[in-house]
Amino acid sequence: MTPPPRKEERPVAALIAPDILALLEESPNDVAAETEEMHAADLADVAEALPIEQVRTLLRVLPAERAADVLEYLDEELRSELLEQMTPAQAARLVSEMTPDDRVDALEELEEERAEEILAEIAPEARRETEKLLTYAPDSAGGLMTTEFVQVPETLTVDEALASVRRIARAGRREAMHAVYVTNEQGALRGVMSLRELLAAAEGTRMSDVAWEEVVSVPATTDRAEVARMTSEYDLVAVPVIDDAGRVIGVVTVDDVIDAIVEEQTEDVQKLGAVQPLEEPYFQAGFWSIARKRGGWLTLLFIEEMFTGTALRHYESTLAGALALTFFIPLIISSGGNSGSQSATLITRALAVGDVEMRDAVRVFMRELGQGLVLGAFLGAIGFGRALMWGNGPDLAWVVAITLLSVVITGTVVGAMLPLAFTKLGFDPAIASSPFVASLVDVAGIIIYFNVAIYLLGLT
Amino acid sequence: MTPPPRKEERPVAALIAPDILALLEESPNDVAAETEEMHAADLADVAEALPIEQVRTLLRVLPAERAADVLEYLDEELRSELLEQMTPAQAARLVSEMTPDDRVDALEELEEERAEEILAEIAPEARRETEKLLTYAPDSAGGLMTTEFVQVPETLTVDEALASVRRIARAGRREAMHAVYVTNEQGALRGVMSLRELLAAAEGTRMSDVAWEEVVSVPATTDRAEVARMTSEYDLVAVPVIDDAGRVIGVVTVDDVIDAIVEEQTEDVQKLGAVQPLEEPYFQAGFWSIARKRGGWLTLLFIEEMFTGTALRHYESTLAGALALTFFIPLIISSGGNSGSQSATLITRALAVGDVEMRDAVRVFMRELGQGLVLGAFLGAIGFGRALMWGNGPDLAWVVAITLLSVVITGTVVGAMLPLAFTKLGFDPAIASSPFVASLVDVAGIIIYFNVAIYLLGLT
Repeated sequence: MTPPPRKEERPVAALIAPDILALLEESPNDVAAETEEMHAADLADVAEALPIEQVRTLLRVLPAERAADVLEYLDEELRSELLEQMTPAQAARLVSEMTPDDRVDALEELEEERAEEILAEIAPEARRETEKLLTYAPDSAGGLMTTEFVQVPETLTVDEALASVRRIARAGRREAMHAVYVTNEQGALRGVMSLRELLAAAEGTRMSDVAWEEVVSVPATTDRAEVARMTSEYDLVAVPVIDDAGRVIGVVTVDDVIDAIVEEQTEDVQKLGAVQPLEEPYFQAGFWSIARKRGGWLTLLFIEEMFTGTALRHYESTLAGALALTFFIPLIISSGGNSGSQSATLITRALAVGDVEMRDAVRVFMRELGQGLVLGAFLGAIGFGRALMWGNGPDLAWVVAITLLSVVITGTVVGAMLPLAFTKLGFDPAIASSPFVASLVDVAGIIIYFNVAIYLLGLT
Repeated sequence: MTPPPRKEERPVAALIAPDILALLEESPNDVAAETEEMHAADLADVAEALPIEQVRTLLRVLPAERAADVLEYLDEELRSELLEQMTPAQAARLVSEMTPDDRVDALEELEEERAEEILAEIAPEARRETEKLLTYAPDSAGGLMTTEFVQVPETLTVDEALASVRRIARAGRREAMHAVYVTNEQGALRGVMSLRELLAAAEGTRMSDVAWEEVVSVPATTDRAEVARMTSEYDLVAVPVIDDAGRVIGVVTVDDVIDAIVEEQTEDVQKLGAVQPLEEPYFQAGFWSIARKRGGWLTLLFIEEMFTGTALRHYESTLAGALALTFFIPLIISSGGNSGSQSATLITRALAVGDVEMRDAVRVFMRELGQGLVLGAFLGAIGFGRALMWGNGPDLAWVVAITLLSVVITGTVVGAMLPLAFTKLGFDPAIASSPFVASLVDVAGIIIYFNVAIYLLGLT
């Protein structure tokens, strides 16, 4: 037998852009059949490489449900542009076929007026549901959830429940059908069973006897980061969202949780790089919006760093007496900044993933003090050698070495303690970014340096 | 009706540590029944708060399958310690009940000799399976996959397939049962159906007619980051892993993908903070192991930064003629470093999530050049005012302003281009960490500063 091709990366899209382009021009009605086996994500990839008029043609010739699938996977910007160009009725036909949570995402990206025009064309039931979902914050469980899920009364038997699942599955696609939720007479969530468990259960038993009663659920206001944490901790594929009466109002599925995790991580990384998180991908974020988000932090860091000038002016006479001191200023302050950045990064991330908690503050302090000692002694030794090589004499070499040791210890301790302090004060620990810690340690470094020099070299 | 309690955070564990401790001492045989409804993750949380001898008792009184579940959710360190303390036979009884992928994880954490003693006590079939899984790199698809999955021949009808699924589900737990894989006569993967699709399909149809033929699959050597990217792109809950002949040898489930995403992210953040990624959580990583991982980067940055001293020595006479120049050195070089860190962070992250690709290099360059112009002009204006306030005269103020503009432009452009250059050269773009970029720009900053000063102030 011939082995199938190894799929080293993603499966190659069955048809690539030029093929689809030719097909769209020559026999548009064959496009649906020819692309039938392609994953909607791949077809969306291909669509992104086409001129926008051809994407419109593509969406028109595909069955509405398939077109909606492709639309879900399209780049946000392109999707918005397409929905703006269609008539409200055409747009409504497509978004009606999207899963409720993706429909809400698509409408949220549009101008409000346009979104309302499209909503007005959607069937009343779906419209009410969509309007309800639009009221939740996009970063909350309510903003992530879909309203398509399966629930059955606890009085049903396993085979009745399974029949009900089959009926619902056949009636249309239900995104969140990894689990079946079991409700009491008042409609409140009482239990959960995965489809696998349902298939394994003895047919005559009541759902109330076999369903798991300890259901992990969240209210609609829960932050997406918390939903992600729970999904990860309990190895879930779906988290039910409940109202005040304990009724399931939606389900957050794992694919949306993964997207949320990646977005949260992007925000954390940007904060650590001293950038106010961008809300859009790099190229989609506006030039001035990025400049503002960077400018704020840069200005703050600039003001923080101005104190290095104040400190240096203070030691003007010392400097005038030993100009060679200047040569080591950048080396010394950057060593403090670098070791501080390392500690801040390690502790911020450890806090984010739960490896370090507030109660570990003393342990962290002791550990980073030790790291500072070891790393500072090491860099001090190299600095000592370098100063001797430059012919600055053993006295200045000792100043450099002792300063490096002190500055690296300052860096590791300040860098490690700041994220904990920010957490304690209710701020985001990621504010303690590499540049922020470095700037803070810079000022300390200069003060330490000149005091060591004044003491050891007998300067004034 | 009384509404059920709102679950603001995680569901509170039904029994907390002191209760369980008392129960373990007074009537250990009731523990299993009393904790039955608790999620294994919660029971593991409680166990982590108990003395280790009590955790051993707990694992002994729970049914083996349940104890294995708890063991899976336990902290790595504690799990290893427990498995070290038991006899190989006791340990084998527990790890036999774990899912194959978690069993491999647990054994990989142990001393090799110990792992082999435990393996020797496991039933032959499970042992061979485990030994096979142990051969894959932990960061690969093979290292993440479980070997429990469901596949059926394509010649089966939908109702035969469903009956087969029920039989397998009843025979024991099968972690990866969100989808059913369809194989041809040679056992090669030909299609996939989700359980939901299987339930919705018409009963008499053949699997070959209804299963999706375009299956997203990976070879065992695929890096976990790539598996994560595919899971996210195609909204999957499981990715089948195939051998060279196209046969399914395992399945990576979404819970392991989420763990992989979080771990990959931790590595990226640590690299951006100029730390060689730790392999363990902060407190579990050895002190000297952390010091080595930090020391390497710190030394490299230190050597890089030494060139600032070389540059400053080069301008010794200029400095002697205008000592006030010194006061602005840290301010100027840190502004370059900070704007460079921002650009490096933005572009590294955009590369990681696919928002920016190599072909966008020119666009990125132009955009960051623009950002540098705007942000540099802004900081230059503040610096100009500050220099005037310090009474350094308009000439020096101009030097500071023009230098800031040039240094910030250098920072943004270098910071943005380095991650792209590293990618092009086949390195990890995250090497372009904040400290790395800052150190590089520091040297450039000093050279720019003194050249502007020499030119504008007529110094030598």
